[in-house]
Amino acid sequence: MIHTDILIIGAGPTGLFTVFEAGLLKLKTHLIDALPQPGGQCAEIYPKKPIYDIPGFPEILAGDLIKNLLKQIESFEPGFTLGERAETLERLEDDTFIVTTNKGTKHHAPVVVIAGGLGSFEPRKPPIANLQKYEDNGVAYIIRDPEVYRNKKVVIAGGGDSALDWSIFLADVASEVTLVHRRNEFRGALDSVEKVQELKNQGKINLITPAEITDLHGENELSGVTVQKKGEEPAFLEVDHFIPLFGLSPKLGPLGDWGLEIEKNAIKVDNSYDYQTNIPGVYAIGDVNTYKGKLKLILSGFHEAAVMCQSAYQRINPGKKYVMKYTTVSGVEGFDGSKKEAKRETVQTIY
Amino acid sequence: MIHTDILIIGAGPTGLFTVFEAGLLKLKTHLIDALPQPGGQCAEIYPKKPIYDIPGFPEILAGDLIKNLLKQIESFEPGFTLGERAETLERLEDDTFIVTTNKGTKHHAPVVVIAGGLGSFEPRKPPIANLQKYEDNGVAYIIRDPEVYRNKKVVIAGGGDSALDWSIFLADVASEVTLVHRRNEFRGALDSVEKVQELKNQGKINLITPAEITDLHGENELSGVTVQKKGEEPAFLEVDHFIPLFGLSPKLGPLGDWGLEIEKNAIKVDNSYDYQTNIPGVYAIGDVNTYKGKLKLILSGFHEAAVMCQSAYQRINPGKKYVMKYTTVSGVEGFDGSKKEAKRETVQTIY
Ligand SMILES: Cc1cc2nc3c(=O)[nH]c(=O)nc-3n(C[C@H](O)[C@H](O)[C@H](O)COP(=O)(O)OP(=O)(O)OC[C@H]3O[C@@H](n4cnc5c(N)ncnc54)[C@H](O)[C@@H]3O)c2cc1C
Ligand SMILES: Cc1cc2nc3c(=O)[nH]c(=O)nc-3n(C[C@H](O)[C@H](O)[C@H](O)COP(=O)(O)OP(=O)(O)OC[C@H]3O[C@@H](n4cnc5c(N)ncnc54)[C@H](O)[C@@H]3O)c2cc1C
Repeated sequence: MIHTDILIIGAGPTGLFTVFEAGLLKLKTHLIDALPQPGGQCAEIYPKKPIYDIPGFPEILAGDLIKNLLKQIESFEPGFTLGERAETLERLEDDTFIVTTNKGTKHHAPVVVIAGGLGSFEPRKPPIANLQKYEDNGVAYIIRDPEVYRNKKVVIAGGGDSALDWSIFLADVASEVTLVHRRNEFRGALDSVEKVQELKNQGKINLITPAEITDLHGENELSGVTVQKKGEEPAFLEVDHFIPLFGLSPKLGPLGDWGLEIEKNAIKVDNSYDYQTNIPGVYAIGDVNTYKGKLKLILSGFHEAAVMCQSAYQRINPGKKYVMKYTTVSGVEGFDGSKKEAKRETVQTIY
Repeated sequence: MIHTDILIIGAGPTGLFTVFEAGLLKLKTHLIDALPQPGGQCAEIYPKKPIYDIPGFPEILAGDLIKNLLKQIESFEPGFTLGERAETLERLEDDTFIVTTNKGTKHHAPVVVIAGGLGSFEPRKPPIANLQKYEDNGVAYIIRDPEVYRNKKVVIAGGGDSALDWSIFLADVASEVTLVHRRNEFRGALDSVEKVQELKNQGKINLITPAEITDLHGENELSGVTVQKKGEEPAFLEVDHFIPLFGLSPKLGPLGDWGLEIEKNAIKVDNSYDYQTNIPGVYAIGDVNTYKGKLKLILSGFHEAAVMCQSAYQRINPGKKYVMKYTTVSGVEGFDGSKKEAKRETVQTIY
């Protein structure tokens, strides 16, 4: 069981900044995210694209914003449970909560903050009848460890950046890489498209377009796929791994069953005060919440995190009076013993 | 008469970022500030100190935050009325407003946003009976044009950074600089304190401590002051200028008389929706407003600005539907013809 003060579901920009605001109040935090890395939409969907409306940054790449946030919260030493989806919420008699993931990891905290964005990112799956049979037996939607594919025969399906970039990467690792896409056109960074063209010309990537994988074969493990090229007869292809990379799509998923008031596929909160949900002690901030006038903007998530932490402080320290201090005036004391603070002025006699 | 879409009172971080959010909605803005420069508290009180809780900046000097914001809003070409205090608010029959400053400059707009922070910054004045008589006739609280003091005899009073830094600067401009402080100890940046010590040793600054100016003399213009050094007889000092630099203190001032609902020396707003005040069309955002759970933080001003601009858009364009677009996806089009946008991906055939 993992214990913490504020359990944060979702490690997007909102969840990450919550670590900072909680840390200023000396509250410890732990984050759960379905993705293998922190950063939410910024890291998963558009890490290399510029954002123009983060206050104080005329321009910043989404991936750099996440890097900066990770640096900003570093000294508050947040815990991470990554690659796991928060599945159930249980309220104990003492009004604290236990959140369990799809892998069975249990987290215990007096305050739960849902910063789940558009939901947990789940892979988009191709409509192949016997797909599920081979999941984890030759079929994977996310590449965690490329070494798994060394000297194996791999089919990648998809026409975007992930499909292009992993084809390039695995061309040097796998014994055979086949890239299948239902169109002739690929959408991605120019240099990725050009590199795939080059590897294809060198015979290092086997390209089949416009085509789709329509069937999977193999006793227990995957041993082959059926490729249906447009206007041709279906063909059998011997392979060890099939990796459909059709992107990840967010699903509110289990959060929808926690007894929270849901509106427009988002969690209703009290924005006139502290972004608490209808379950006291459970807050929802960032893209995942809704209220009159809600803007799904990163800068709003930051504000909601700051306000919400003040209320959480009261819940965790009932009756204790908290006087807000400016970071400029009081500095920032990390849980790692570090202290950042402004240079002191001198008070000195002039003779 | 200056016409604009959104008239912003206060050019602190909140007012400045409002220009950006309004600009995204194609609304023009104009700012009024009592100070001669934009930046509010950040620029006036602590430009060289680090802030640690601006999201995405592990550390940023307050002055640099303001520089960045000015850069971020540049292409939206905001107008500025600086060094003037917004004095009166008049509501016209067509529900638009006229705001007049203490210098008589008139501004006309359908929406007024008060981003006035703790109020307009007014100089703290020493308790000298006939002080007012010499204001603008030898007494000044802010130095706008140092050339005024060339080859003149100047007395500066104060013990902080402004008094130190202006004494240093004017030592090369004025014919005589006297620095008077009621203590022996000065509070300021180490190098400023050391520099004053050095100039004093060289006879370039005449230092009188612990002492106070207690009386002013002169027919119509200032020609001398009485210096009261502790434990000594009062002495007469011939001078052309007396510059008390005791800091600026913010005063809600005229805003308090505009018929706005005031609570805790701040303006009450509807935080459950759009930060509008009790006068429709007049909003209050940033440090100047109050509501349940209000945090006087820069990051909250940013969020309030974004939300408020959406409501202002509806007021200015009744019935027009606005679909929010991400800056990353749609870019930022300045009023100066510039356009910032993410590099397009290619869609390209691989043969
Ligand atoms: C292409 C694009 C461009 C954009 N441009 C801008 C822009 O210019 N400006 C701007 O302000 N915003 C922009 N946005 C929106 C911005 O990215 C979001 O507002 C922001 O990411 C929301 O942050 P968040 O932390 O609330 O949620 P997210 O970033 O969505 O993160 C939520 C995280 O929670 C996780 N999660 C959810 N449920 C669970 C669960 N049950 N268990 C475990 N983990 C879970 C998800 O996996 C995810 O990682 C853009 C979005 C996109 C897609
Ligand atoms: C020493 C110090 C340290 C701080 N540290 C932090 C920190 O670490 N983090 C943080 O988030 N915040 C911090 N703050 C607070 C932060 O500076 C304020 O929250 C922020 O400046 C508020 O911005 P604003 O734009 O709302 O108002 P302000 O910055 O106060 O600007 C308001 C402007 O409005 C003008 N004005 C008001 N009335 C009128 C009028 N009638 N006519 C014309 N002009 C008018 C004023 O002259 C002023 O320039 C600190 C403040 C101080 C003093």
